[in-house]
Amino acid sequence: MTLLTCFELGLVDALRDSPGLTAAELGKVAGAKPDAVEQLLLLLVKEGFVAHDEAAGTYTLDALAGVAEKDLQQALADLDMIKAVTLRQLFYLTESVRTGTTVGLKELYGFDGDLYGALAELPELREPWAKLMNTVTAHVDPWFFSQVDIPAGSRVLDLAGNTGLGAVNTLRLANSSGLRVTTFDLPEKEAECLENFRSHGVEEYCSFIGGDVFEEVPKGFDVVLIKHFLPMFDKSDVFRILEGVNKSLEVGGQVHVLVPVFPENLKETENYTVDFYPSFFIGCTMGQGGPQKLSTWQSWLEECGFTVTKAVTDDPDNLPPHALTVEAMLSATKTA
Amino acid sequence: MTLLTCFELGLVDALRDSPGLTAAELGKVAGAKPDAVEQLLLLLVKEGFVAHDEAAGTYTLDALAGVAEKDLQQALADLDMIKAVTLRQLFYLTESVRTGTTVGLKELYGFDGDLYGALAELPELREPWAKLMNTVTAHVDPWFFSQVDIPAGSRVLDLAGNTGLGAVNTLRLANSSGLRVTTFDLPEKEAECLENFRSHGVEEYCSFIGGDVFEEVPKGFDVVLIKHFLPMFDKSDVFRILEGVNKSLEVGGQVHVLVPVFPENLKETENYTVDFYPSFFIGCTMGQGGPQKLSTWQSWLEECGFTVTKAVTDDPDNLPPHALTVEAMLSATKTA
Repeated sequence: MTLLTCFELGLVDALRDSPGLTAAELGKVAGAKPDAVEQLLLLLVKEGFVAHDEAAGTYTLDALAGVAEKDLQQALADLDMIKAVTLRQLFYLTESVRTGTTVGLKELYGFDGDLYGALAELPELREPWAKLMNTVTAHVDPWFFSQVDIPAGSRVLDLAGNTGLGAVNTLRLANSSGLRVTTFDLPEKEAECLENFRSHGVEEYCSFIGGDVFEEVPKGFDVVLIKHFLPMFDKSDVFRILEGVNKSLEVGGQVHVLVPVFPENLKETENYTVDFYPSFFIGCTMGQGGPQKLSTWQSWLEECGFTVTKAVTDDPDNLPPHALTVEAMLSATKTA
Repeated sequence: MTLLTCFELGLVDALRDSPGLTAAELGKVAGAKPDAVEQLLLLLVKEGFVAHDEAAGTYTLDALAGVAEKDLQQALADLDMIKAVTLRQLFYLTESVRTGTTVGLKELYGFDGDLYGALAELPELREPWAKLMNTVTAHVDPWFFSQVDIPAGSRVLDLAGNTGLGAVNTLRLANSSGLRVTTFDLPEKEAECLENFRSHGVEEYCSFIGGDVFEEVPKGFDVVLIKHFLPMFDKSDVFRILEGVNKSLEVGGQVHVLVPVFPENLKETENYTVDFYPSFFIGCTMGQGGPQKLSTWQSWLEECGFTVTKAVTDDPDNLPPHALTVEAMLSATKTA
């Protein structure tokens, strides 16, 4: 918060425009006392983000001057999301674990339900969430579709496909011809989904089916995509989903799964996924769920009647410099 | 919060009593789903606090088994205080900086005022705060009094001495005879202070004066103690306090100051004081203030008419292993 507050107060922008400002001058920019500006900037000096000329009493950007604007905006999107979606909510983590619900959303916003419900009602959560997710999706979807192999002419079901943007991306990015893509999600998504199909000019190739993945997965598809959905659930519900998908497919039908993964060796100290995601899923988004190791996702697919034909992890070096998640893609074929 | 939640759920205690429990067994202890227990313990495995036998599916304490109970309780007191006093409050840091008030206390508790006022009214803040502060004081007061030199027979004023426990400690720890110690604080502290003097059997040597340090510091004292008070204020108010103390003393009168300090070299990466204190004082306790470098405290004393005769920092190696603060003691004599 110390770093984010320096941005929110406009201190970094002011130093970019006018290197060499004093705490008094920065205080005027921020509408704050120079004493508070001095206190906050100590950490940025320690980290080498900002330099302080003690003799002159002035500040200039140090390492922050060399960060590309796009990277900086994405890192700020991370910080904004963490502030809005996790910081206060984690105070209630223990109660969230015990109840399997996001107690923070109830206590802070009076909201009964998970984060995805809250996003629809609360712009103070939706806006920072969407800003971050747009940067994540912009990277992950091209990578995902570069890894999957969808035969020409396939009938594709995008499971829990929300309002259809995943279907649109499938047509755009899957590098396959003659696809027909159906978004499957709760019936209340239909109108917005169909509007998205029309506005993207793909209504001829796309359709919507309303339903509940825990009741029945629609039949008649060759390929099912399950993107960013399984980690929202505990193992028993992941199995209900995968078994439902398995039941809906003919033998030979394929599923392509996009999931975040923990490293196989948990002791990789440079990997922060286990620092972040358990409390994030349980305390802040779903009251349950979380990533698994790639080997766990693979064995769960096998236990649900699939044979895994491909399991790859996004190369961390390919990720934007600010990114935390390491995504994996698993392809599997129904064999039983 | 992931670590603290594992303690709050009783997972660590359960593993100490029964090494080799499964996630299912730990879930029963915690009243939580095994899935959530597995997710939370990933971080403790990464950090080497807990060991996981993947083949057997069981957990045992790893490094946590070797932490002395007293150290563990003190570290938990730190975490409890940070959870209660800072975690949610820092969400409002930017507004706290702009207004110079602790906006988090207002938003979360409807409380207008600083943390010290809130502690009196809110047990959910007071209890974790007191638990931590007791461990801090138990270490710091003996060190402080081992460093100060108070001549026998001195009349001592404990500035902002709260309810008299500092005066009691002065008699106990200053290693000087014939002292008379007066606690100076707001008039509403008087009854509890006098009761503390009686219950400690020191009412013969101690007295109380009610007043406001920003209006007038009482005269007639040889030595003034200012312990853990100056960092609560911005520079202009620190100067008002020090100038008021200076005015109250005869030439030759002494002041002994206890303050937390930042390192002279801010880039000491192992020193986390600048990571913690600026946002703590501004966002969570006072809406202003914060530690300074030892050299800054020294120059401020000199600017307020004192000659500094001693300025020492507590050796970090002397601190309890969990401690964050590095305290300093400055002795100074009125020369102008």
